Amino acid sequence: MAAPGQNLAVVVHRAGDLRLENRPIPEPGPNEVLLRMHSVGICGSDVHYWQHGRIGNFVVKDPMVLGHEASGTVVKVGSGVTHLKPGDRVAIEPGVPREMDEFCKTGHYNLSPTIFFCATPPDDGNLCRYYKHSASYCYKLPDNVTFEEGALIEPLSVGIHACKRAGVTLGSKVFVSGSGPIGLVNVLVAKMMGAAAVVITDLLGAHLDGCARTQASQALLLLVEACPPPALEVDLSASRLQKAKEVGADFTIQIKNETPQEVASKVESLLGCMPEITVECTGVEACIQAGIYATRSGGTLVLVGLGPDMVTVPIVNAAVREVDIRGIFRYCNTWPVAIALLASKRINVKPLVTHRFPLEKALEAFETTKRGEGVKVMLKCDPTDHNP
Amino acid sequence: MAAPGQNLAVVVHRAGDLRLENRPIPEPGPNEVLLRMHSVGICGSDVHYWQHGRIGNFVVKDPMVLGHEASGTVVKVGSGVTHLKPGDRVAIEPGVPREMDEFCKTGHYNLSPTIFFCATPPDDGNLCRYYKHSASYCYKLPDNVTFEEGALIEPLSVGIHACKRAGVTLGSKVFVSGSGPIGLVNVLVAKMMGAAAVVITDLLGAHLDGCARTQASQALLLLVEACPPPALEVDLSASRLQKAKEVGADFTIQIKNETPQEVASKVESLLGCMPEITVECTGVEACIQAGIYATRSGGTLVLVGLGPDMVTVPIVNAAVREVDIRGIFRYCNTWPVAIALLASKRINVKPLVTHRFPLEKALEAFETTKRGEGVKVMLKCDPTDHNP
Amino acid sequence: MAAPGQNLAVVVHRAGDLRLENRPIPEPGPNEVLLRMHSVGICGSDVHYWQHGRIGNFVVKDPMVLGHEASGTVVKVGSGVTHLKPGDRVAIEPGVPREMDEFCKTGHYNLSPTIFFCATPPDDGNLCRYYKHSASYCYKLPDNVTFEEGALIEPLSVGIHACKRAGVTLGSKVFVSGSGPIGLVNVLVAKMMGAAAVVITDLLGAHLDGCARTQASQALLLLVEACPPPALEVDLSASRLQKAKEVGADFTIQIKNETPQEVASKVESLLGCMPEITVECTGVEACIQAGIYATRSGGTLVLVGLGPDMVTVPIVNAAVREVDIRGIFRYCNTWPVAIALLASKRINVKPLVTHRFPLEKALEAFETTKRGEGVKVMLKCDPTDHNP
Amino acid sequence: MAAPGQNLAVVVHRAGDLRLENRPIPEPGPNEVLLRMHSVGICGSDVHYWQHGRIGNFVVKDPMVLGHEASGTVVKVGSGVTHLKPGDRVAIEPGVPREMDEFCKTGHYNLSPTIFFCATPPDDGNLCRYYKHSASYCYKLPDNVTFEEGALIEPLSVGIHACKRAGVTLGSKVFVSGSGPIGLVNVLVAKMMGAAAVVITDLLGAHLDGCARTQASQALLLLVEACPPPALEVDLSASRLQKAKEVGADFTIQIKNETPQEVASKVESLLGCMPEITVECTGVEACIQAGIYATRSGGTLVLVGLGPDMVTVPIVNAAVREVDIRGIFRYCNTWPVAIALLASKRINVKPLVTHRFPLEKALEAFETTKRGEGVKVMLKCDPTDHNP
Repeated sequence: MAAPGQNLAVVVHRAGDLRLENRPIPEPGPNEVLLRMHSVGICGSDVHYWQHGRIGNFVVKDPMVLGHEASGTVVKVGSGVTHLKPGDRVAIEPGVPREMDEFCKTGHYNLSPTIFFCATPPDDGNLCRYYKHSASYCYKLPDNVTFEEGALIEPLSVGIHACKRAGVTLGSKVFVSGSGPIGLVNVLVAKMMGAAAVVITDLLGAHLDGCARTQASQALLLLVEACPPPALEVDLSASRLQKAKEVGADFTIQIKNETPQEVASKVESLLGCMPEITVECTGVEACIQAGIYATRSGGTLVLVGLGPDMVTVPIVNAAVREVDIRGIFRYCNTWPVAIALLASKRINVKPLVTHRFPLEKALEAFETTKRGEGVKVMLKCDPTDHNP
Repeated sequence: MAAPGQNLAVVVHRAGDLRLENRPIPEPGPNEVLLRMHSVGICGSDVHYWQHGRIGNFVVKDPMVLGHEASGTVVKVGSGVTHLKPGDRVAIEPGVPREMDEFCKTGHYNLSPTIFFCATPPDDGNLCRYYKHSASYCYKLPDNVTFEEGALIEPLSVGIHACKRAGVTLGSKVFVSGSGPIGLVNVLVAKMMGAAAVVITDLLGAHLDGCARTQASQALLLLVEACPPPALEVDLSASRLQKAKEVGADFTIQIKNETPQEVASKVESLLGCMPEITVECTGVEACIQAGIYATRSGGTLVLVGLGPDMVTVPIVNAAVREVDIRGIFRYCNTWPVAIALLASKRINVKPLVTHRFPLEKALEAFETTKRGEGVKVMLKCDPTDHNP
Repeated sequence: MAAPGQNLAVVVHRAGDLRLENRPIPEPGPNEVLLRMHSVGICGSDVHYWQHGRIGNFVVKDPMVLGHEASGTVVKVGSGVTHLKPGDRVAIEPGVPREMDEFCKTGHYNLSPTIFFCATPPDDGNLCRYYKHSASYCYKLPDNVTFEEGALIEPLSVGIHACKRAGVTLGSKVFVSGSGPIGLVNVLVAKMMGAAAVVITDLLGAHLDGCARTQASQALLLLVEACPPPALEVDLSASRLQKAKEVGADFTIQIKNETPQEVASKVESLLGCMPEITVECTGVEACIQAGIYATRSGGTLVLVGLGPDMVTVPIVNAAVREVDIRGIFRYCNTWPVAIALLASKRINVKPLVTHRFPLEKALEAFETTKRGEGVKVMLKCDPTDHNP
Repeated sequence: MAAPGQNLAVVVHRAGDLRLENRPIPEPGPNEVLLRMHSVGICGSDVHYWQHGRIGNFVVKDPMVLGHEASGTVVKVGSGVTHLKPGDRVAIEPGVPREMDEFCKTGHYNLSPTIFFCATPPDDGNLCRYYKHSASYCYKLPDNVTFEEGALIEPLSVGIHACKRAGVTLGSKVFVSGSGPIGLVNVLVAKMMGAAAVVITDLLGAHLDGCARTQASQALLLLVEACPPPALEVDLSASRLQKAKEVGADFTIQIKNETPQEVASKVESLLGCMPEITVECTGVEACIQAGIYATRSGGTLVLVGLGPDMVTVPIVNAAVREVDIRGIFRYCNTWPVAIALLASKRINVKPLVTHRFPLEKALEAFETTKRGEGVKVMLKCDPTDHNP
């Protein structure tokens, strides 16, 4: 039990230096709420900051609280808050725009350059007992949605944003490239949006050297926020593809030595036609190439996974067939969608949680995540309630 | 068994005069195929032409073959046909544009004013043994899709086109107004497209006199192509709403004496928020009004059911809340979508077929349909195969 | 010259009671700026509040400062403001959302139900010496854009929002119904967006009784914010159509006793085809009907003018030809567009200003506006600078 | 004057072998019209087939008539043609889909893989006296549009399609990369669509070796259909940028040794902000890179120019800023747009024609084009009328 006024938090100080320490309980501003945190998932990026002290240009210079897949209970509301009250159970959207700039005004607040984002330096995350957040980015959970489901909205949002940007609709044929967690989430979401058939591949590992793989993983960690540790990426192809089938994939492809063109041919052969949509979740150059070759003329390739800064792609092939190439950056406007789906029991994300630890055992939880065991490790931050 | 060269057909001569008669087997043109018809559903509009000899401005002046919900087998192909061959099983899209006009070139061929449409005077339908059709509008059925599923693509297409025009997407809250066949199809399609919750109402019957109801029904028959006889519309509210739940409706509203505003309030109350989308399937003035009041600002009201030519609507309410009002005319580009969904077993329309008759007993089948028994009556046109 | 601490303001107390009085100079909040007002246009709605004390449900209960077509100079910035500094010349967007709700997050902040809006009760406007406003809704004017051009962005925005919602694009044929100020603005904007031909009508006056006309005018005043007094609407058809030609209309129609269908025929005849887009700016029932009949299948009718709450429209005609009916509510995301156009000298709104009065003579300016003289009356609020 | 039954035509037999020879006058099919050709522009691709006998995979195996920028007069109509009659003056869209496939049905007929296209092997063009064409792809010219304007619709269409795919709209800031003919056309079209400001660059020549340049040019010739001979691409920067200003460019950049990032900075600096849209017309790798860096987050880069098959691009930069990359293939649905604009005198393309030759002097005309003199060389195919 937290002592009065105390706020146990998981703090990374620098690469390799992760600590449980007490911080003061913050005071919410006029448009903020103070939350008693309940469930916070550990993301690959959290592990990465712990291990490396940085992701790309984002460097841990001052101690930073980790955590951004989170839900909790309102305990105090700022003077200007009208839609929430103490006792409300909420899911937390970790990105909060700081300015009402052109991106916010036009509905793309995720692209706002000054956005606050939990556990991206220098912004603190919410892996702690008490946390304050913009009330507008806390979404009330219906009674029939658990705190853990609320916390899982964050990784789910990557799939929602990607499939929306892809234009998945009724009857779509979809090629999901890569069967990591984000690949799986995209299969799940694509099917919910009416996709008629989804084919998924394992990574095109044979075309990668270790360096490219690492680069890919690092960026992936940064950007899609739900990646397992790189160590896991080897030799898991079969179990991944099995998992993909469980969440709705109609066909799977186990890559060996195929060229990008050969992968594209296999995709077409399995679907009976070229897919209108490819969701690329590896960031690997050869996979992006395969994604272009595979996509039907007039279709869309969405880049979710991200690898090296510069890649060589068959741009003429894409251009003259009017295959659009679209990236995603995090997500926007996904929490209400996800809550509606969870409330109506259209989607079951509960099985994704394979491990639970009380906040006090956070270091053990991080070690477990680092070893790549299970799928999603949840930290239970409320000492009085460790239920899902 | 048809005699060689003979082509048994169901022909309406004028109001009340329906005949089974032999017509010559047609010869396919260069871009056409000759089909041995297999399964043809009876639509409310077929019954209406038989009973009244007209629907709106479309008047039966010369004897016309009925039928437009159909599937069959290719027996002969024109010289220019490359994608079909004898023996192919196909579903038939009944509307075929005659000119490559601006509507066709921009992807809205359903709006082409000179379009051919099966069983709309003066164009013959396909309730017969042998029928020729534009090869481009015959779609090959996969082995795992039955002929009857192929024939049911036609009514399913109305829902697909409506939900696409409505912009149903992941997490949508949808209000379907009216639980006739087309209302049910829209529930089914909306859920497949990712709608989080659907509420459906019975007709606002208390606000209608008989005249308005008849007008509504006639136009509905003409335009949405899958309506039951008007006689059925009374006293079936409970069973309809039950059926709606079976196909995916989350909430149902049984209308008694509510005003349009009260209906809108009930919709909001059940969904927990105003729906972004309303699909109006009755054509009744009070229902259209309810649809406007019910739809969230910035949302869309799609008009599927059609009643009297002129209706009085709260246009300022719609306009200042930027609620778009969009109609549909038949459908376009829906057969490939429907076949993909049927092939992947994402949708089950088989239970809709409650009666089957051989073509020789067509008059008995029409009497059965007129009495409003069951849901969909199928005529089996191939004497050698009466399977689904 | 204003005495220190004094803030001369134009305040409506109740119907018929307009006063020039001193108010305190407000203190900007952290995200606000204090402005020394420069140019404020008088809008029909300002006159209407003065004359009637209300517009629809918006009732002047407490004294309210008028004015919402405005520009000024930053004199003080709140602690959180980074993009503006004292001395910056800015145009003011009068609507500022109070909450980051779903409408704001998705880019439709104009639909937010709790929005602040200048000079709509109970929110004060900016027809005064000093005014504070959300910094995010003050847009810096380039050196080559005058204050008056900045103030005119407000009426221009109605046309921008309407033509964007209409989907005007390269080669569009456009029918603008009604040649009041907003009709003219829509002609101007439609041509700038690439419309190939625009036809404009005078009001369908012959089909209206006085009551409907008054209703139309009142709502118009409320919603499109740039209407002349009703007294002006008679006998000005010729000069209006001449003005329409000057701003870019290709064809004009002077309505006499035509039915809506006859108006539609004239539109088609003049354009050589039916227009894809109709922008209805009168709110009159017969004009809305004409707008439906006139618009090409698959096209869009935008409702800008608004009349009686309930109107009778040929909804089946619209629905079966897939003519979308879309309203507008004020505007959003238009200021940056308008400033870019003004800065590049692509549009000339300067001739619209026909009268100028110093703030001290506001009552005289309102009398002039009420008499319907000229086009736009500007109040010059900065005693040290009466330039445009 | 052509002898009866004779049809003088410009025919390429193989690389370097261009002949004027007589062919039979074709007979139009039921849905075709026979045209007496009037004006045909010479395109870079015509010269390229003459010089090299191939463009990419398109190889001249049998003698082929050149020409695809064309207009003429109907002299005979097929039995099924209703919208044209002998004497009608028409512009010819050179691409005619052969099948009503999914691309046609959804409004993207340019992507149909079996499309007929004038003067792309093995399809004959229309640089001859008499030519038959699908009636649906011949568009009647209004009296106030000349034959030469009709012929120039073809290169204009590339700009229309590109700017539509780019989403240019009111107030857009646009960066056009490359000031060849297609770059200029895009400036012209972007401004017509309401772009507030356009900046255009010369080629990033300093970053290219001769080989890359040649590759770029070849593909460009194939795909954008309006390129000058490569010989022209040197040392013309100043005159090109001058020409760009004349057609509407607000700012120009003369590239020397800038890196792609430096080019992007200059673009932002001149516009005062990053452009929402970049239209890349060179196909050069460094220019595509600059296009990505330059485009605002959430914006669109359209690839019009095409160079080497594989290019190295900063894909992460594009993806995480949600900059969409979209190519174009020829055009679709542009002729009606262009004719409407020409008829309304909104656009003046007449000055583009700098040379005219009678068909009999076609070889001389081709030599002139090859030398890169002037802008557009027109062949006058009707011996009785050499007017524009």
